[in-house]
Amino acid sequence: MKAVAVESVKACSVNPIDVKVRAKVYDDFPDYYNYVPGDDYQILGYDGAGVVEAVGDDVKDFKSGDEVYYAGSPIRHGSNAELQLVDSLSIARKPTNLSFVQTACLPLTWITAYEALVERMQVKVGEQAAVLIINGAGGVGSVASQIARHVLKLPVVITTTSRQETTDFSKQMGATHTVNHREIPAQIVKLDLAVPLKYIFLTHSTANYLPVATKVCAPFGKICSIVQTKDFPQYGTEMMAKSITFVWELLGTKPWYKTDVESHGKMLEELRQLVEKGVVKCHHTQTFPLTAKGLRDAHEMVESGGSIGKNGLSVDDPAAHGQAFA
Amino acid sequence: MKAVAVESVKACSVNPIDVKVRAKVYDDFPDYYNYVPGDDYQILGYDGAGVVEAVGDDVKDFKSGDEVYYAGSPIRHGSNAELQLVDSLSIARKPTNLSFVQTACLPLTWITAYEALVERMQVKVGEQAAVLIINGAGGVGSVASQIARHVLKLPVVITTTSRQETTDFSKQMGATHTVNHREIPAQIVKLDLAVPLKYIFLTHSTANYLPVATKVCAPFGKICSIVQTKDFPQYGTEMMAKSITFVWELLGTKPWYKTDVESHGKMLEELRQLVEKGVVKCHHTQTFPLTAKGLRDAHEMVESGGSIGKNGLSVDDPAAHGQAFA
Ligand SMILES: NC(=O)c1ccc[n+]([C@@H]2O[C@H](COP(=O)([O-])OP(=O)(O)OC[C@H]3O[C@@H](n4cnc5c(N)ncnc54)[C@H](OP(=O)(O)O)[C@@H]3O)[C@@H](O)[C@H]2O)c1
Ligand SMILES: NC(=O)c1ccc[n+]([C@@H]2O[C@H](COP(=O)([O-])OP(=O)(O)OC[C@H]3O[C@@H](n4cnc5c(N)ncnc54)[C@H](OP(=O)(O)O)[C@@H]3O)[C@@H](O)[C@H]2O)c1
Repeated sequence: MKAVAVESVKACSVNPIDVKVRAKVYDDFPDYYNYVPGDDYQILGYDGAGVVEAVGDDVKDFKSGDEVYYAGSPIRHGSNAELQLVDSLSIARKPTNLSFVQTACLPLTWITAYEALVERMQVKVGEQAAVLIINGAGGVGSVASQIARHVLKLPVVITTTSRQETTDFSKQMGATHTVNHREIPAQIVKLDLAVPLKYIFLTHSTANYLPVATKVCAPFGKICSIVQTKDFPQYGTEMMAKSITFVWELLGTKPWYKTDVESHGKMLEELRQLVEKGVVKCHHTQTFPLTAKGLRDAHEMVESGGSIGKNGLSVDDPAAHGQAFA
Repeated sequence: MKAVAVESVKACSVNPIDVKVRAKVYDDFPDYYNYVPGDDYQILGYDGAGVVEAVGDDVKDFKSGDEVYYAGSPIRHGSNAELQLVDSLSIARKPTNLSFVQTACLPLTWITAYEALVERMQVKVGEQAAVLIINGAGGVGSVASQIARHVLKLPVVITTTSRQETTDFSKQMGATHTVNHREIPAQIVKLDLAVPLKYIFLTHSTANYLPVATKVCAPFGKICSIVQTKDFPQYGTEMMAKSITFVWELLGTKPWYKTDVESHGKMLEELRQLVEKGVVKCHHTQTFPLTAKGLRDAHEMVESGGSIGKNGLSVDDPAAHGQAFA
């Protein structure tokens, strides 16, 4: 027990990765995807928020009683539990102006979007460029839009949506323009952008969107995806003609390869400050009870493919916390 | 006739792209690959070195009689000709210590390798990292190794080769280590590198080498390819688990999309100085006469797949110029 802390879990959220791991989608993949932390089962749940119960000898920044939040790790058990062991370098203090369940909706999607935009695609603050985010109202898309608009201050943040609710939600979440997923080249051409579309962030169906992303991407532009794909349709497209960069973002890379683990704690600390200042809004929209049935319902909600923002689960009465965003 | 110059061609070289365009490999590709500059035929030949005959009104830096070299462009006719029209922004003065035929071997491979390492993968000078170059003795590989070692000053430059001649040549060209193409993961593990293998440059058979490149690449590493591929084998590999960046490099992107065209001229001017100072060696190894038969022979040489360094073609007696490198 060195740099670890035990949390009493107050709230968690369900992410598509939980559903995929439960459904054994990656069973024939390398170790990463099938690691079982020291037992013959794995407790699911990445995102968590809770209260520190105990800390290891090396932990200086946190003590018993602190209210914290974290994104979890592929090498430890998850947050769908009463108690959870976490790496103390990867946690941060909970924003004071959010409930536990709102807080638990943020970490995984925020870190993923932040790493994608800032570390993988290396978008610069104030760059005169546009970003296109595929699936603007999803968990990741709705924080990515806020990072692009309010942290990186890009002048143009285009997201894709297909319903009135998701269009409205995505605009509240920072989109300056929305287009329909199915009409991407045409609707983007119509926008007649004054800045080049240099960055494209795929958070849905990589194989479907890679060819259109290539079409609308500026020469030397970058496409980042967070969604595994069997097909990778690039041959015969302009991907090479434009010298395009394609980059994978996976939240688990740092904890799995044990590099730069403390950056997750730092990102969440920065996020705490942004939320407390009102720069970033929480994308929590719905609360389930943190019970076996609540988990099943939340998994079904994510599996439906129509979830907006994030669904949280709380140990307390949802009615007391579940202040939906909209 | 604005920023253009007409050159009397003294020497050129044959690159694999000339062979591919001649063989109509990309006939069903987007415009880029099948552009025919204003006629119903295309004169082949990217690389050229020659003497300026005339310049357009806007040209300030060059005048008739200047000895220059250039990489050509997909939107103009090529260098397999007596006279050639080139964009004056993309040319530079010929190094004084090389013959025309030696000079004509440099531009395309140099610009490609430079863009790949410096612009696409953004390797930093003096970085404590290793690079792996697939096909170390090829035209591009043998200048890429020099850029990596002598310009970017990386401590470890590993190239792949499969014959004694190519191994020796690649070491003369800057490789600190060579491994066999066919034993990449095992031989690289054996090197027990003290720095992370962060950069991999594929200059042969992208589909074959992508999976092994992924295996040996450090987390968050970058793989750059210059070779079109139908298959893109990434699913089920660690490419996403390691959050790897894949980036295409194509020399033609700038002239085709008309962005940053002057950078080619600047790179060749920098190269002239490096060659004159003896930092960079020319990778020319063999000379053919610049005649219809000489061109056919040089195409056959490139098609054989066993060419070492670069083959040049000269209007003068090869014996007078063709000082092979080794
Ligand atoms: N690599 C990583 O580290 C990482 C991290 C987090 C998430 N992920 C992955 O990223 C993906 C997105 O996760 P998420 O939580 O943001 O998603 P999500 O919240 O489940 O996304 C739901 C939204 O998807 C949209 N959608 C449905 N079908 C679509 C289609 N064909 N094209 C585009 N959008 C469509 C819907 O919006 P409309 O109603 O407007 O169509 C819906 O509101 C998942 O595959 C997840 O596993 C990866
Ligand atoms: N995207 C761009 O802008 C751009 C620019 C330049 C070139 N290119 C492309 O880059 C590729 C390389 O061009 P180049 O001129 O450097 O090549 P090259 O000079 O024709 O390469 C010849 C060398 O390839 C090696 N080789 C043969 N089979 C191999 C294999 N299976 N695996 C690895 N190496 C093998 C041989 O070395 P051993 O005998 O040691 O095996 C041989 O000496 C071509 O496909 C070309 O079209 C693209």
